[in-house]
Parts: sequence; C-alpha cells; structure tokens
Amino acid sequence: MTEHASEPQQELTYGDVEQAAARIAGAAHRTPVLTSRTADAATGASLFFKAENLQRMGAFKFRGAYNAIAKFDAAQRAAGVLTYSSGNHAQAIALSARLAGIRAAIIMPKDAPELKVRATQGYGGEVIFYDRYTENREEIGQRLARERGMTLIPPYDHPDVIAGQGTAAKELFEETGPLDLLLVPLGGGGLLAGCALAASSLSPDCKVIGVEPEAGNDGQQSLRSGRIVDIGVPQTIADGAQTSHLGQHNFAVIRRLVDDIVTVSDAHLVEAMKFFAERMKTVVEPTGCLAAAAALSGVVPVAGKRVGILISGGNVDLARFARLVAG
Amino acid sequence: MTEHASEPQQELTYGDVEQAAARIAGAAHRTPVLTSRTADAATGASLFFKAENLQRMGAFKFRGAYNAIAKFDAAQRAAGVLTYSSGNHAQAIALSARLAGIRAAIIMPKDAPELKVRATQGYGGEVIFYDRYTENREEIGQRLARERGMTLIPPYDHPDVIAGQGTAAKELFEETGPLDLLLVPLGGGGLLAGCALAASSLSPDCKVIGVEPEAGNDGQQSLRSGRIVDIGVPQTIADGAQTSHLGQHNFAVIRRLVDDIVTVSDAHLVEAMKFFAERMKTVVEPTGCLAAAAALSGVVPVAGKRVGILISGGNVDLARFARLVAG
Repeated sequence: MTEHASEPQQELTYGDVEQAAARIAGAAHRTPVLTSRTADAATGASLFFKAENLQRMGAFKFRGAYNAIAKFDAAQRAAGVLTYSSGNHAQAIALSARLAGIRAAIIMPKDAPELKVRATQGYGGEVIFYDRYTENREEIGQRLARERGMTLIPPYDHPDVIAGQGTAAKELFEETGPLDLLLVPLGGGGLLAGCALAASSLSPDCKVIGVEPEAGNDGQQSLRSGRIVDIGVPQTIADGAQTSHLGQHNFAVIRRLVDDIVTVSDAHLVEAMKFFAERMKTVVEPTGCLAAAAALSGVVPVAGKRVGILISGGNVDLARFARLVAG
Repeated sequence: MTEHASEPQQELTYGDVEQAAARIAGAAHRTPVLTSRTADAATGASLFFKAENLQRMGAFKFRGAYNAIAKFDAAQRAAGVLTYSSGNHAQAIALSARLAGIRAAIIMPKDAPELKVRATQGYGGEVIFYDRYTENREEIGQRLARERGMTLIPPYDHPDVIAGQGTAAKELFEETGPLDLLLVPLGGGGLLAGCALAASSLSPDCKVIGVEPEAGNDGQQSLRSGRIVDIGVPQTIADGAQTSHLGQHNFAVIRRLVDDIVTVSDAHLVEAMKFFAERMKTVVEPTGCLAAAAALSGVVPVAGKRVGILISGGNVDLARFARLVAG
C-alpha cells in the first residue's frame, strides 16, 4: 500500500475510543439517555437520545478536546495548546486546558459572536482575532504553533479528537445494548467517525448514518464519490455544521464504517428544536437537532426499529433560540 | 379539641406519602435530580434541582392525581372522576384516568387556552366549559358530582393529592440525603404540604420554605396570621400560582411543618427561566421557577448550604416562552 503524505498513517480502531473513555472518566459528564413516549408514538420506533447538550460546556466537543490534551507530554504541557474555532470546540479547548492547568490560545474571527468570545475567555483561554475575509486560520495556527511551540488541536481532523467524540456512542450502547440504527450530526466528521468506531465494536449490525444540512451536503457528496469534496461555507442555521469539507482522518473512518449520509432542511431542524423544547423540555442548538430531525421528519425511515440519536449540543443564544421556536 | 366542619379530620403524616409512593411506582417517572456547577458557583451553595418538568404530562401534578384515583373503589371507578382546573391538574387527572381505565370530566373556563383544552382532550378527558365571570366552578363541580355520581378530586385541597405530591421530595431526599433547606413553589399548597411531610421524616432538621409570587402572597399572609387569607386572583406570570387562597388540608400541614413563606418578583422568575434554558438546557414554566428564583436572586440566603429546589413543571406555550426569555 502506497502512502500519501496528507493521509492518516494509522487506522483508528475502537481501542482508541476505549482509551479515550478511560482518560475522560471523571472529567466529562456521563450524559443521560433520554426517551420520549410522544416521539416513539409519532415515529413507531424506539428512540434513544444521547443528550450531549447536557455535557460540560454544553456540547460533545469537550470529550475530544479533553482526550487530546490528556495525552500531552511534559514539553507540550509547558508550551500549552492552540486551536482555531468560533464554535463549541473553542470553549472545549479552553475548559480542558484550564482543568489540565495549561495555557490555551484560541484563534477566532474578529466578528465572532461576543457571547462565544466571552465564554472562551471565561474559561481562561487567550483569544487571538483574525480577519476571516483576508486571512487563513490554518496558516495563522501553524505559524503560532511554530513561534510559541504550542500544540495545535484542530476542531475535528485529529485522531485523538475523533476517539474522544466516540465515547458518546460508547456510553449510549452501554446503556441501550445493540441498536438497529444510529443517527449522528455531521459537520467536519469528528462525532460521526468516533461514533462509527464505537458502533463497529459494540453493535456491529447497527447501521450508522450521518445527517448534515441540505445546504451543506459535502459529506454526502464525499461518501458517494469516494473523495473529499469541498463546497465552500454552506448557508444553514446549523452553525456547527458550516464546515466546507470533511477532515482527512474523519473521512478515512467514515468511508470505512458509515453506511449512508442524508440531509435535512433548516425547516426540519426548527421542527425538531420545537419538539425538544415543547415535549422533552430540553434546549438543543440547531446543529444538535440534525439527527433527530432525520428521524422525526421521516427522511430516514425508523418505524419498528431501535434507534440511537446523538444530540450534539445545546449552545444557542437565547434570543436566537426564541426567534427560531416562536415562528 | 373542638372540631370545625370545614377542617381536616385526620392529620396527614409521612406514612401517607410512603403509601402514595407505592401506588404511583411504575406509573410516574422517577425524575432526575439535576445539579449545575454554574448555579453552585453563583450562589456558593450546593443546589439539588428535582426536575418535575420531566414528569409525565410535564408537571408534578401527575403524582397527586394518580394517587387519588388509585384509591378509588369499584363504585367510584364505575362512575369516574371529576375535577375543575385550567392548568396542569386537568391533564394530570385526564391522563391518570386513562391509565386507570375510567372516565374523567374536567370543568374548564370557556376562555381556557386552546392548547390546554386540546391536551386534556388528547388524554381522553371530557371537557365541560363554564363562564368564569358568571359561574362558580366549585358549585358546578359539586352539582355534577351529585348528578353523575363522579368523585371530585380538586387540584390541591385533598389529602390524597397532598400525599401524592410529597413523593417528589421523598425521591429527592432518597437521592441527596438530608438537606439544610428545601425550597418549594407555592400556589394552593399541594406540593408544599406534601414535601413538608416528606422532609419532616427524611430530613427533620431541614428548613422548609414555600415560595410564591409577590403579587400572590396569600400564603405568606396566612402563615403569619394563622388563618387562611383570601386575596383574589393575583396578577403574575406564574399562572400555576394564581390561586387566591390555600386549601384547608394544605394549610393544616403548612402551619405545622413549614418554616417560612417568601415571595419573588416576576422579573426574578424570568431570570431563573433564562438561567435554566441557557445554562442547564431545560425548559421550565414560570411557576416552576419560583423556588429556584428565591435561591438565585438571593431572596433566600443559601451560601454554604445544601439546598433542595423543586422545579414544579415545564408546560409553557413555546411562543410565550420565547417572548419571556427573549427580553
């Protein structure tokens, strides 16, 4: 087998997820698995919702960030961690670094929401601004990593991040036993790849399906064409899935272990968000509704099946949440 | 001791709560006890939130209604159950009756929210409308009870309802052990009286405090004056606490076992509702926020204490919820 420099060198396995689970134990919440008679009656299925909106800092991202940092050696710990993110990964890195007692620098766009900037700073992270229209965050990250000696942990394209995210599905299967179907929100592919690793070992017959926004179907195109397709930044209310392409490490796992990738509309996301608030009394951000929307809208047929559904996060500005659910 | 016809004949005890717990086991959810690092950091206390917004039909009311109906004899079962309520008790009776396989009639004001009427009918309850400006619901209830032979289970002034509601605090103490303080929303006094019974046995040194809206401080006036004070319907966003006076059975327990009654403003309720949505990702109706608002606002000093907080329910129209939290 020939090797391509940009391709992953070593195949990720469920063993990596197990090791991540041991590292994050005690630091991450073991989030509850929610059920709803109403949702089951509406779909004819047994739905099991893994509530990562109740994870620390409000999203699954804490798992991967904490796992990556927990592997740092003494030199890495001394120099600290660096990342670029305007979303949940920024807070995940800042909080994980604080818990590990190391420095964190987060590269964020100048026009990032004030709320997210303050939340990241609130966890003790140093925020470094860049202009997203004239500068490239990956380049800035690599330069800062060289200059400061900090270790760069990107939002999804990293083996330790993927393994960490997979612990969410590991916990789900441990609670439910084998499932027929697992639906997972898809942006850059960290959660989907990690969960597929967990399913492959804990529920080998379970079909694993990624769900992305209609406007951002790069994952679907990539899986079908067998290569990573880049589509530019998609317009969708699912801000956590506004990635333009899958990560290399992520795609390597996804093409190997994921059965299909489907899309849902923003209207489906709003319906799911309302269902969660009204019937299950839980606040889920638009991106966090992707998997549930696929089941509730009928995009993925679920009747008669036992179905795991990842709720990825609950970090949504209240005023925005109010606008979305009031309509 | 002389007896007054309208006063309770027999003193309620924790034994009644224990019996209620046995009756509702398997039917009611054992709701989770939530904690929040953010809330603890903000108050300097250890707060334990009993999440009855995650109870069946979305409120603690299911406990009391189910307990009362579970005690029916064959003749009562054959004739069915009757109540008056425009709130959560209506749905609680309708659902409990359906589960028991008996008929339920619910007297509701003509101008009750369409959503609540439909929810009650959705559980199979017969809704009987009355004009709240010209008719008296208690009289209509007593007349229908005579004519149809149905058993009237009022929303709070009933021993079996009180004992049922107390199971919420019983579960809380079983999970947390003894507490320093227990804060409970107060409307008619069903939840407060029941929880005080549980505390008196499971955590005898725990101070029990009822929390009502500023505009509806009839409970506070009643406890301080030693007699039930009627104040007319209070104007507050806490629609579940728009009772004008405590029940007889409720007051008998409250004056015996409750340490104090405090009030919070509607603005405090909105702040608590936002805190629940933003930080704990959970949807709580205004009335359900009463106890939490007392702790978060500082109305009741909690620093250094282990504090139980009853979240009573989560049934709030989404458009209304959006208006309240968006401000």
